[in-house]
Amino acid sequence: MHSFDNALELTGSGEKLSGRTTPEYANMVGPFGGVTAAVVVRAIQQHPDVLGDPVTLTVNFLGPIAYGDFDLSVRPVRTNRATQHWSVEISQDGAAVTTATAVFGFRRSTWSATEAGFPSVPDAETVAEQSFPDIYAWPQNYEMRFVEGGLMELDGSENAESVSTLWLRDKPVRPLDFPALTSIADAFYPRIFRRLGRPTVAGTVSMTTYFHADAATLAAYGTDYILGTARGQAFGAGYFDQTAQLWGVGKNLLATSHQVVYFKG
Amino acid sequence: MHSFDNALELTGSGEKLSGRTTPEYANMVGPFGGVTAAVVVRAIQQHPDVLGDPVTLTVNFLGPIAYGDFDLSVRPVRTNRATQHWSVEISQDGAAVTTATAVFGFRRSTWSATEAGFPSVPDAETVAEQSFPDIYAWPQNYEMRFVEGGLMELDGSENAESVSTLWLRDKPVRPLDFPALTSIADAFYPRIFRRLGRPTVAGTVSMTTYFHADAATLAAYGTDYILGTARGQAFGAGYFDQTAQLWGVGKNLLATSHQVVYFKG
Repeated sequence: MHSFDNALELTGSGEKLSGRTTPEYANMVGPFGGVTAAVVVRAIQQHPDVLGDPVTLTVNFLGPIAYGDFDLSVRPVRTNRATQHWSVEISQDGAAVTTATAVFGFRRSTWSATEAGFPSVPDAETVAEQSFPDIYAWPQNYEMRFVEGGLMELDGSENAESVSTLWLRDKPVRPLDFPALTSIADAFYPRIFRRLGRPTVAGTVSMTTYFHADAATLAAYGTDYILGTARGQAFGAGYFDQTAQLWGVGKNLLATSHQVVYFKG
Repeated sequence: MHSFDNALELTGSGEKLSGRTTPEYANMVGPFGGVTAAVVVRAIQQHPDVLGDPVTLTVNFLGPIAYGDFDLSVRPVRTNRATQHWSVEISQDGAAVTTATAVFGFRRSTWSATEAGFPSVPDAETVAEQSFPDIYAWPQNYEMRFVEGGLMELDGSENAESVSTLWLRDKPVRPLDFPALTSIADAFYPRIFRRLGRPTVAGTVSMTTYFHADAATLAAYGTDYILGTARGQAFGAGYFDQTAQLWGVGKNLLATSHQVVYFKG
């Protein structure tokens, strides 16, 4: 079983589910937030009343998740003709550690356009893969090929821009689906590291992802690379925001994602 | 009393509050979403256990709010040393119409930088104020001076870019505070109108705002203009996203805001 599928394994049914953290996706303090967000998507997908596919997901990280078991409460708050609103809470020992809201929906054909611009990048195969020291657990699960702004390039000098752009995919490869895309949206290291030129204490407080790809697009995508690019907009008073785009190899925008991050520095 | 303060009037205390829509902020179907989002902020601010100021707010619009009374359930889910997580639900006749999550927090001095660029714009006073036909209720509550992409300029021809940039503030003027800033973050008309060159059926599904200004900054701001700019990133399959920046006259980024919008077209 792929380590990502293993991390998404949930027991129970309907509104009450249980899961557990897995060592492969450990982060500094608690599990990688991307996998926690993916667990929320998977929990909703497993609900017998689910309609359609994710349109938006917001996950709030209330505090570190302790390594071990957790419980999920999955509530369909309202079902409309084309959209369905969900509220999810993850708890440990009865105390909430993560809250989330999501909108799932049916897609239909409409006028369409991609206004954001696909970054100018070389093909994935021509960019060197980044290797990470063993102290970083969760990045070992991603093949990351940084075009710009790699984590291991930080040299202690400040940078005027916080952009990182990279080709990435699950490692070993795994067909793309909504949980995988959700997790990848959190795979950018904190933009404050890039600005300061060094790691500092930082943790995502809240993350919102808008899904532009429909289920058919993802089903056809397979195991190809995704181009991710992220940058911060404002840093100060203990927080910064970062905004990201996840592109398909066909230059189609699969998802956009935003987060606000707590930091010391 | 200012019409905005009137719209924010809530009765009750603590976790159970009641409010009502006001005709001044009516939109096509139900009230202007910005005021609904502002009501959520005000409800949390009124809670006796509130700590600090808004860091992030996500509001999900489950369906139109009927004109009239509504109830709020305001729950402090978890309080940490520096952050406090909230869950809010607005209901009518026992059925949820809006869900929201918010993080409030204490700010402290850290390294700071604004990476996003302040748009090149003329001073507010040199830009003509937009007047809106009476059929638009809520925009009458804002003084809007469009630098680019005004609603009344739509002429039926498609545009390659969805950007609108405008100076705006409450009308009549009112000192800026977190509810007002929250509402202003939703004051951009749907970006699909600008791309298509005409209005169409559209409604915000979910909106997330990150607050970069602290309470002292807002308290000192007074009644000056805010520069808002918004653009869509991807349109298709019934939804699009739009991303916005709200700047102070001192070229400081007060808030960034994102939303996903349902549309027909």
